[in-house]
Amino acid sequence: MPLAISPADVEAAAVRIRPLVSETPVLESERLNERAGASLFFKAENLQKGGSFKLRGAANFVRQIPPGELAAGVVAFSSGNHAQAVAIAARDAGARATIVMPSDAPRVKLEGTRSWGAEVVFYDRMREDREVIAAKVLAERRGTLIPPFDHPWVIAGQGTCALELMRQVPDLDALLVCLGGGGLLAGCAVAAKAANPAMRIFGVEPLNGNDGQQSLRSGKRVAIPVPDTIADGLRTTCVGAHNFPILQALVEDVLTVTEEEIVEAARLLFKELRVVVEPSGAAAAALALSGKLPAGVERIGITLSGGNAEPAFLRGLLD
Amino acid sequence: MPLAISPADVEAAAVRIRPLVSETPVLESERLNERAGASLFFKAENLQKGGSFKLRGAANFVRQIPPGELAAGVVAFSSGNHAQAVAIAARDAGARATIVMPSDAPRVKLEGTRSWGAEVVFYDRMREDREVIAAKVLAERRGTLIPPFDHPWVIAGQGTCALELMRQVPDLDALLVCLGGGGLLAGCAVAAKAANPAMRIFGVEPLNGNDGQQSLRSGKRVAIPVPDTIADGLRTTCVGAHNFPILQALVEDVLTVTEEEIVEAARLLFKELRVVVEPSGAAAAALALSGKLPAGVERIGITLSGGNAEPAFLRGLLD
Repeated sequence: MPLAISPADVEAAAVRIRPLVSETPVLESERLNERAGASLFFKAENLQKGGSFKLRGAANFVRQIPPGELAAGVVAFSSGNHAQAVAIAARDAGARATIVMPSDAPRVKLEGTRSWGAEVVFYDRMREDREVIAAKVLAERRGTLIPPFDHPWVIAGQGTCALELMRQVPDLDALLVCLGGGGLLAGCAVAAKAANPAMRIFGVEPLNGNDGQQSLRSGKRVAIPVPDTIADGLRTTCVGAHNFPILQALVEDVLTVTEEEIVEAARLLFKELRVVVEPSGAAAAALALSGKLPAGVERIGITLSGGNAEPAFLRGLLD
Repeated sequence: MPLAISPADVEAAAVRIRPLVSETPVLESERLNERAGASLFFKAENLQKGGSFKLRGAANFVRQIPPGELAAGVVAFSSGNHAQAVAIAARDAGARATIVMPSDAPRVKLEGTRSWGAEVVFYDRMREDREVIAAKVLAERRGTLIPPFDHPWVIAGQGTCALELMRQVPDLDALLVCLGGGGLLAGCAVAAKAANPAMRIFGVEPLNGNDGQQSLRSGKRVAIPVPDTIADGLRTTCVGAHNFPILQALVEDVLTVTEEEIVEAARLLFKELRVVVEPSGAAAAALALSGKLPAGVERIGITLSGGNAEPAFLRGLLD
């Protein structure tokens, strides 16, 4: 069975989303390099519009919806970065966006989503079933559902992150990518391996939510209960169906980091790079900064996948 | 009398410092644009090595010191960003750096300076005279003194900031530059006016330390007592002698911002751009974000000149 996307899909996505998506900078720090014992190139998707890489996939999706269908608007289910990304991509396309969020979603992400003009519909996570709400909203609105990671258009969009990074730093030998549902990892793997077949590609996820590691090592998608991790964007329970075969084909391994390593990485990135990285966005960096790099890698691209951190989390980093 | 530097000096500086200095990104935010009523392009020198634009001038200076003199090392007097910049440029050149600091210098800047291998010599700001210490250290070390702003090599180096910005965003109509001693403003003015004679250039300084505004408006350099402002990098008492004629020739006006406007700008930049900006680095942005832009400007380059903020300041932004 062919993989869900080809390198040409990522190239096409890059052209398609260019008017909306920022080329994010690559940040470096000699002090962090010394700590890791390697040269680290941080792809700062935390500085992307909406504060995460998610805009790449959302934009690549929304821009392929036929005009007739776009008129009915788009719908997404997310309390996180996907919500803001869909809101931005929809506004850019002149489409109505409805975002379904649990009523206890973080205020910063709720406000962010609304500020881009999206309508937010709440559900009670304790009393209402997410699937029932989803069916109801979709029936009422008749808009196009934009999935957060398990779709070829989303995967191809996320892959533009690696495409950019490899043009910015042409001689990387490895890529560390934060792994939740596998949209960013799968897309980046396709783009990076096409440009350099020798590139070593690793997913990084919280030890507490290592469904990706279990899946890759066992050879089949393993679903776990909702993991308890500070990295709220990586609380997915299972890697996507379109994503998994790509991971099997192109990703060398999935490695894990502890909660403490994630927090310490966010603190170091804040101090040394002077940027805000949310816990989910610091996972890949945490692997490098806690001395757990795979042997033999020297020039490493690392995704800082998001920057929508809660004020309380940042306060903790300053203490 | 000719100006202290020409546009060609800035071009030469850009080539000279390229191996050491990062090309910093330009950050944008639709929400900040809406607030300002204009398109703002933030030149993120807070993400520069050492955390400020100062490395540009220091590198351009150190790289022009003849090898015979470089062997005696370099000396700088600074408790701030110039200290770190000189330390980095000296280490890169294989030269010994001695930085003279008041014994009550902020810990974050002291540690930053030492981490780049510089030797720090303290003096007691209350009991010892800075000029006497300076003479003593220079006599002992016989190294080259690197001034913070009042020197053609420093001014030309700082000008590379605008050179980069105008290549990144070619159609700006105005530039807002933080003003302390005038190194960054003078250098950027020379580079920007050469590329586009219609470019409108403004300095921005704290209302509490408006020596630059007084000087430009009165037509002569006005010295003031050490100003009381949170923007510690802009606590200079007088614009430089080499810098002032450039400001007179090329800068339209110097505008001021209040302490509250500086803090609010740093808060907005932190929240919307997800980067750390120190008070001195937020002054130019504060002018735009507090609704005080000059009439008729639409596409505005703004220096975020530094990011070495104290943890206590950042904590305040989160409350």
